[in-house]
Amino acid sequence: MSFSAADHALMARALRLAERGAYTTRPNPMVGCVIARDGAVVGEGWHQRQGGPHAEVFALREAGAAARGATAYVTLEPCAHHGSTPPCADALVEAGVARVVAAMRDPFPQVDGAGFERLRAAGIVVEHGLLEAQARELNRGFLSRVERGRPWLRVKLAMSLDGRTALANGESKWISGEASRRDVQRWRARSGALLTGAGTVLADDPHLTVRLDDGSAFVPPLRVVLDAGLATLARGHVREGSAPTLYLHAPDAKLPHGLAIEHAPAPVHGTRFDLDAVLRLLAARGINEVQVEAGATLAGAFLAAGLVDEVLLYIAPVLLGDTARPLFAGLSIAHMAQRFQLQPVDCTLLGEDLRLRLRPLARAAAAAA
Amino acid sequence: MSFSAADHALMARALRLAERGAYTTRPNPMVGCVIARDGAVVGEGWHQRQGGPHAEVFALREAGAAARGATAYVTLEPCAHHGSTPPCADALVEAGVARVVAAMRDPFPQVDGAGFERLRAAGIVVEHGLLEAQARELNRGFLSRVERGRPWLRVKLAMSLDGRTALANGESKWISGEASRRDVQRWRARSGALLTGAGTVLADDPHLTVRLDDGSAFVPPLRVVLDAGLATLARGHVREGSAPTLYLHAPDAKLPHGLAIEHAPAPVHGTRFDLDAVLRLLAARGINEVQVEAGATLAGAFLAAGLVDEVLLYIAPVLLGDTARPLFAGLSIAHMAQRFQLQPVDCTLLGEDLRLRLRPLARAAAAAA
Repeated sequence: MSFSAADHALMARALRLAERGAYTTRPNPMVGCVIARDGAVVGEGWHQRQGGPHAEVFALREAGAAARGATAYVTLEPCAHHGSTPPCADALVEAGVARVVAAMRDPFPQVDGAGFERLRAAGIVVEHGLLEAQARELNRGFLSRVERGRPWLRVKLAMSLDGRTALANGESKWISGEASRRDVQRWRARSGALLTGAGTVLADDPHLTVRLDDGSAFVPPLRVVLDAGLATLARGHVREGSAPTLYLHAPDAKLPHGLAIEHAPAPVHGTRFDLDAVLRLLAARGINEVQVEAGATLAGAFLAAGLVDEVLLYIAPVLLGDTARPLFAGLSIAHMAQRFQLQPVDCTLLGEDLRLRLRPLARAAAAAA
Repeated sequence: MSFSAADHALMARALRLAERGAYTTRPNPMVGCVIARDGAVVGEGWHQRQGGPHAEVFALREAGAAARGATAYVTLEPCAHHGSTPPCADALVEAGVARVVAAMRDPFPQVDGAGFERLRAAGIVVEHGLLEAQARELNRGFLSRVERGRPWLRVKLAMSLDGRTALANGESKWISGEASRRDVQRWRARSGALLTGAGTVLADDPHLTVRLDDGSAFVPPLRVVLDAGLATLARGHVREGSAPTLYLHAPDAKLPHGLAIEHAPAPVHGTRFDLDAVLRLLAARGINEVQVEAGATLAGAFLAAGLVDEVLLYIAPVLLGDTARPLFAGLSIAHMAQRFQLQPVDCTLLGEDLRLRLRPLARAAAAAA
């Protein structure tokens, strides 16, 4: 299949539209749609919110009669099922669209090729695979949940230039600057859940809420606290405000009388949570992307378990010295072959800070085993 | 004084020409010269090598008779003294140049305004200060030596993402990639000296030579070993090849019989070299830029002494864990106010690695003291 330069440009536009839903479409995927005739855009739309119209509906509304004979560019296969809204495939057929170009097939079991089938059955030319890598990257959270049964896991870390997160006495204020802190909020806003551990709750009493300075709409992420013995209930910030909070505890944890918080048991091996099970539990709740904001131990445990998909690393240009606290704890690396390798995705200067985004590669030692 | 857009463009060109001498002009400053009439370039040159013609001479030769009435753009005040070559100011006068624009005055005692004087006395219009910051940046090594009496000090470091230089057992191979290693060679080539400590010589037996893969000419940097007791003489790579080597030792070091290497005493306080005195000694030998390639202790000592002008930090996207060796040793930082702060200069992806260039800011605690 070969696509023209115009096809590429119009799909790229649809991908940018899709991304506008990053803070609001959860648990649905982000989808964008562009309808064009003879290379000219006649309608555009993106999926804004679960329960609201899909991208195709917005674009068809804008196109009106101009949709007849046109090409629809969609970043994901149009749905074929009645969910909260009628099937988009039917709407495209009804509008008389001549050709549908999709970036990718939707692996969601109720779609999974059925959308393409319905379009083809109505005589519409269907092509897909245009900018598929970009479309997969856009919805890496949704795809991870549907295809792997667990959310995409992003670990947010902030460190000094010499790889330290705090002084030996725990002092950690002003490590990262204002621009970095604003950037973190945007990554929080696109997360379905913000996950932390009991240690961080006790030490920092974080709010784990989203504060965007540009007024963008967002769905508040679920705050998840891993607290085996429910020992941190006295630390209240993480339960304040309108965002929901979920405590995960050991199955045998003693639940306080009249506990008025949402909580659920999760498997524990010894003193440690089964982190894979924790992620499956969150996927079952419709969480696409989890952002871990925790200390060196929990971050290290996710990494050692091979469950980290992305590291969001803020580096402040300060040196804290070799007695300060390390970035990850509990990684036992005795030989170079056991080192963790990552692939840089991007690198940005944020004020005086540096932001690195990286993705772990398969571990050398694990591959050899 | 106000300069035109053409003035800016021509001086920018002269600065780029000057930089071509980065590997070869030492201990002289890099200088570029562009001669232009009515905005058109009629001659160009740069200083290539100590003892060879200055930038102005090359540019005047190329311009020939077209230099009469032209403007000469020079990145540094033309010399007024007989060094290895006759004064450039005289050559500009003789060629009938009408106007000279210099990026900056030359603080070298035998010039220091005398070049401008001689030009003005001959009726030439002299202006300076155009792109002065860039010209100072270009010759930061030469200027440091002339103005501060010590070389510009660059510390080269390579670390993992979590701020480690080697595993606990000392294993450090393959931390940084091929592109980073090539980049290091270019920074070595512009250094007047490559400095290391006895610990690094014993552990790694480095060559500290320059290997450029593009065939560029360079003057081999002086290899300097800080070895108080001359205990590393058995480790030979640093003395091999055609590049010169200088051992600095404690004044009371026992010199082996028939020692056939260049060596000099340097002040030692207790067991540590007086690093400021070491740098002054190197400046007296005409060294403009020193690149430190040493371990955590010596790098940390230079930093703690406030003598580091620039950190060249190669970050490999690997994690080595919290038992691995730290980037700097011996920085005693008990409170956040004592942290070392740096200013990022640039950030580049080199293959899979990241290169950060930073400059230390005044230390908060020191400023408060």
